[in-house]
Amino acid sequence: MLSIWAVEGIPEIVAGDDLAAIIGDAVGELQDGDILAITSKIVSKAEGRLVRADDREDAITAETVRVVATRGATRIVENKLGLVLAAAGVDASNTPEGFVLLLPEDPDASARALASALRERLGVRLGVVITDTLGRPWREGQADAAIGAAGILVLDDLRGSTDANGRVLEATVGATADEIASAADLVKGKSGGLPVAVVRGLGHLVGDLDLPGARSLVRSSENDMFRLGTREAWDEGYRAGLHAAQQ
Amino acid sequence: MLSIWAVEGIPEIVAGDDLAAIIGDAVGELQDGDILAITSKIVSKAEGRLVRADDREDAITAETVRVVATRGATRIVENKLGLVLAAAGVDASNTPEGFVLLLPEDPDASARALASALRERLGVRLGVVITDTLGRPWREGQADAAIGAAGILVLDDLRGSTDANGRVLEATVGATADEIASAADLVKGKSGGLPVAVVRGLGHLVGDLDLPGARSLVRSSENDMFRLGTREAWDEGYRAGLHAAQQ
Repeated sequence: MLSIWAVEGIPEIVAGDDLAAIIGDAVGELQDGDILAITSKIVSKAEGRLVRADDREDAITAETVRVVATRGATRIVENKLGLVLAAAGVDASNTPEGFVLLLPEDPDASARALASALRERLGVRLGVVITDTLGRPWREGQADAAIGAAGILVLDDLRGSTDANGRVLEATVGATADEIASAADLVKGKSGGLPVAVVRGLGHLVGDLDLPGARSLVRSSENDMFRLGTREAWDEGYRAGLHAAQQ
Repeated sequence: MLSIWAVEGIPEIVAGDDLAAIIGDAVGELQDGDILAITSKIVSKAEGRLVRADDREDAITAETVRVVATRGATRIVENKLGLVLAAAGVDASNTPEGFVLLLPEDPDASARALASALRERLGVRLGVVITDTLGRPWREGQADAAIGAAGILVLDDLRGSTDANGRVLEATVGATADEIASAADLVKGKSGGLPVAVVRGLGHLVGDLDLPGARSLVRSSENDMFRLGTREAWDEGYRAGLHAAQQ
C-alpha cells in the first residue's frame, strides 16, 4: 500500500530559511522508508535563488547551456543541470515583480543536505526527491519529475530479471524518482501552496545518501535521439547541404 | 490522502476473457471516486491482440504510421493511436514464442467499456486509466503513462487560475492521467504480475464517462517541436539543401 499526502503548514519560504527545520516541524512523525517530495521552488527560495531580473529573457539566456528548440516566444533549452526544459527553468510566476526564481544550483546536493538533516532530526531513514514541472515532447500537459534526489534508487533497473514466463526483461529501467514526483504532484496541486508531500510505502527504494542522484536521470545530449528540435535540425542539415553542394 | 494499492489475484488473461468481471471479482469493495489503473497488456490479451508474428519487425511496421527516429535496432515511431513510442508498442516479452502482443485497438473505448461495466457491477462511480510504459526524450528510464482513459479528467487545466500571489497561471496544464499511471506503476511493478491498481483519493478528477479520453493527451505531430529525430530531420534538411543548390 502506497500512501501519499501533502504536508500542511509550510509557511512562505524566504532566503536563508532553514528548510530542514521548517519541514521537520511541519511533517509530523515519519517512518523508516518514507520519501519526501519537495517542490523545487521552496528549495530555490531558501537558497536565495530569487534574483532581481529586469528582463526574464536575459535571465533565461544566462541559465542556458544550449538552445534545443524555439517556437515563437517558447525556448526549449538545456540548462546548467543538463535538464531540457522550457525557459531554462526560470520562473516568473509566483514571484514579486522584477524578480525571477532560478532552479537550485545543485538540486542533488540540496536533496542530500535536506535528507541528511531530516534523517538526523527525525531519527528515520528517509529519502528526498526535489521536483519540478516539465513539459514533454509528443504529449500534452506537464508532469512533475525529479530534478534532485538523495537516499533513493532513482532508476529501478529490471534488466536481466525475468518476466512471468521466465524470459529475461531486456529494456525495462523504471524511472522511479520521476514516478514518485508525478505521484506526489497529484496531492500537492499547482496553485494550492502545498510544496511538500510524504510518500509512504516505497521503503524498498530508500537507501544510503550516497546513491546516485537525479542527475543520473538526465540523458546526455550525445546519447539522445532528440538533441535538437525538428526545425532546428532540419535548418542545420539544410545549411550543410547547401555548403556541400557549393564545394 | 492518496492511497494506491495493487489488486491481488488477477489470473493470466486470455482472449475472450470478461475483464470487467475478473477485475470486479478481484478488486473487493470500491468507493465513489476510485480510479483503476490497468496495464494495457491484460486489456490487449482479453481483446485477442496476442497475434502470431514470425517476425517482430514486420509486426512493428504494420503498426507504424510514421517513423520518427531510428538508431541501430531501435525504431521510435508514431503508431495508429498517435502515440510516439519504441517498437510501435509491439511487445514480444511476456508472450509465447512466435507471438507478439499489440496494443488495444482503441484504448479509450476499452477504458469506457471497462468503466461502464465496472460502475454497474460495483455500484460506484469510478474512473479507468489504461497504462503503458513509455520512454522519454532527454531522460533515462521509462515511466508509465495513460494510453486509454474513461470517467476522469485526463488534463487538469489550471490556466487562468491564480497563484498564491494572485497572479494568473499561464501555462500549467497538469497531465493528471499520466501522473496517475506513473503513481500506479510504483505499486504494480514490472515483473510482479500485478496488472491492476486502485487509486483512491482523487475523486475530484472522476466524472462522466463521456469526458475526453487519453487521446487528448497526444499532441499532434504538426504541433510538436520534436516531430522527427535530430538525425532524421538533419538528413531531410541536408537533402533539401543539396537540391536547392542544384536548382
